[in-house]
Amino acid sequence: MVKQKNYAIGIDIGGTTTKFGIVDHRGDTLYRGVIASNKFEKIEPYLDELSEALSPAIEEVGGINEIKGIGIGAPNGNYYSGTIEYAPNLKWKGIVPLAKLVSEKFKLPAALTNDANAAAVGEMMYGAAKGMKDFIMITLGTGVGSGIVANGHLILGHDGFAGELGHTIIVPGGRLHWSTGHRGSLEAYASATGVANTAIEFLEQRPTEKSLLRNIEKEYIDSRVVFDCALKGDVIAKDVYAFTGKILGEALANFVMFSSPEAIILFGGLTKAGDLIMKPTREHMEKNLLPIFQNKVKLIFSELKEADAAILGASALVWEMKS
Amino acid sequence: MVKQKNYAIGIDIGGTTTKFGIVDHRGDTLYRGVIASNKFEKIEPYLDELSEALSPAIEEVGGINEIKGIGIGAPNGNYYSGTIEYAPNLKWKGIVPLAKLVSEKFKLPAALTNDANAAAVGEMMYGAAKGMKDFIMITLGTGVGSGIVANGHLILGHDGFAGELGHTIIVPGGRLHWSTGHRGSLEAYASATGVANTAIEFLEQRPTEKSLLRNIEKEYIDSRVVFDCALKGDVIAKDVYAFTGKILGEALANFVMFSSPEAIILFGGLTKAGDLIMKPTREHMEKNLLPIFQNKVKLIFSELKEADAAILGASALVWEMKS
Repeated sequence: MVKQKNYAIGIDIGGTTTKFGIVDHRGDTLYRGVIASNKFEKIEPYLDELSEALSPAIEEVGGINEIKGIGIGAPNGNYYSGTIEYAPNLKWKGIVPLAKLVSEKFKLPAALTNDANAAAVGEMMYGAAKGMKDFIMITLGTGVGSGIVANGHLILGHDGFAGELGHTIIVPGGRLHWSTGHRGSLEAYASATGVANTAIEFLEQRPTEKSLLRNIEKEYIDSRVVFDCALKGDVIAKDVYAFTGKILGEALANFVMFSSPEAIILFGGLTKAGDLIMKPTREHMEKNLLPIFQNKVKLIFSELKEADAAILGASALVWEMKS
Repeated sequence: MVKQKNYAIGIDIGGTTTKFGIVDHRGDTLYRGVIASNKFEKIEPYLDELSEALSPAIEEVGGINEIKGIGIGAPNGNYYSGTIEYAPNLKWKGIVPLAKLVSEKFKLPAALTNDANAAAVGEMMYGAAKGMKDFIMITLGTGVGSGIVANGHLILGHDGFAGELGHTIIVPGGRLHWSTGHRGSLEAYASATGVANTAIEFLEQRPTEKSLLRNIEKEYIDSRVVFDCALKGDVIAKDVYAFTGKILGEALANFVMFSSPEAIILFGGLTKAGDLIMKPTREHMEKNLLPIFQNKVKLIFSELKEADAAILGASALVWEMKS
């Protein structure tokens, strides 16, 4: 008799950090850890570090034989081919056969998808999208990702790359994206990097206006600092979030007219700003919708802890594997 | 024994005309006809005219007992509820229970969907999308409609209204749409009406430049006239199509990053301009795509005769009915 394996490893590769966890059948994350994603130019030393970081937790649950497999969410991760292809926010360029490399490294089956797709699956299994058949997950982190579910299934597209909503152009001729070279994409504005850039732009455009942000050196201005200043009533900092929400809301209106989702779920670092980002986003989304779509779409924050959603979603790929 | 019914009626309601046909199981359209969509403010006299126009063809195939049902494609047509809701291009305002009204009028079961969704189904069953599981149909007529197929199924959304890509905003703050009141939607530019408006704008913006279009009274300038002048080498007329293709291409790039389709199929009046519209559309679509999407999406014209695609698609709803 083959013993049932009780655990899955979920790995969430973001532009800055890689989070991982060991998850059981109920969706409880037993062990969590994190390493930097971009410390190494090459993939091999990164995998060494990942393996080292995971080892103690693997031993803790009873060793590798207790683990069924590894699910990975990564930018530009392709479910069909198991590869990461030309991910703008990662150092590994070209096509990286990550599922294969991870599988060889850990001697376990591995499956891969887009990090935001993984988060969407996590949300559908355990979070705010439980029971929904049509929703869009937008991840507002270092970059802007998305996972789209329609008719109860992830939209992967003909090649596995669907759902790159962060790279749709919302402001034609607008801000230059730091890595794609395109102008005016959603990610250039509604990511942590985008918020910092907007703050710096506003400080330059309004040179005579006082702001707490002027006490902070340019390179230390990030979305967290802007949020802290906004909480203290700083006008420029509040305007930064109002502007970010406007662009995001306009983008979401376009997405609604594509797939008419029951809900849009916002997830990631920027959601910590709460109403500061939610209110302008909702206002500008509604304003740009046709009447038939207005006041119907639930715009909500993720119900999963930030680290957990993507890890849970990635681990869910494992339970789907043929054993 | 219940005799199998051999025919279906397909009805395609557009902003200007309503086209209908009687279709057999093989997808051959036996009889075709057309009436004006917007001659009547009320729905009842419209249905009378439709019934009168269809009667001779119904008799021709052997009477009403030979017909299984009626499938309808209409702007803002909702498959779930059988209603047309707040269609900006139709005179009947509010919520019109069209499937029910048609069913009562003809004493036949009736089903309804968005006209562009119907065209997409027609294309998937009989046209350029045969065998495809992921494609987008864009209809470039009086307005701009769309039907999106992902994982082999129409994306209808949680409420049946998905696929209103003509109303996505491509040029924020741009041209005012004549009926929605929104600025910069795809339909404001890439529809027949949009092309005429662009021509009139260009003539005003370039007052000293000669153009064949100046020989035509403003109210007679339409997409057909602009096309004819472009064929004769008129620079402004050619620029109108180049500009239209630019906007359309930018929009298509956004759509590709949503659902990563194998193909985008262009359909409707504007496609008669051939390369004049196709070349700039393709160029600007590719330019706005991330590398992972470039040179992969087939951008093609519909293979079905314009009248047939929507009629065939609408009639396909009938074969799906439980008998």
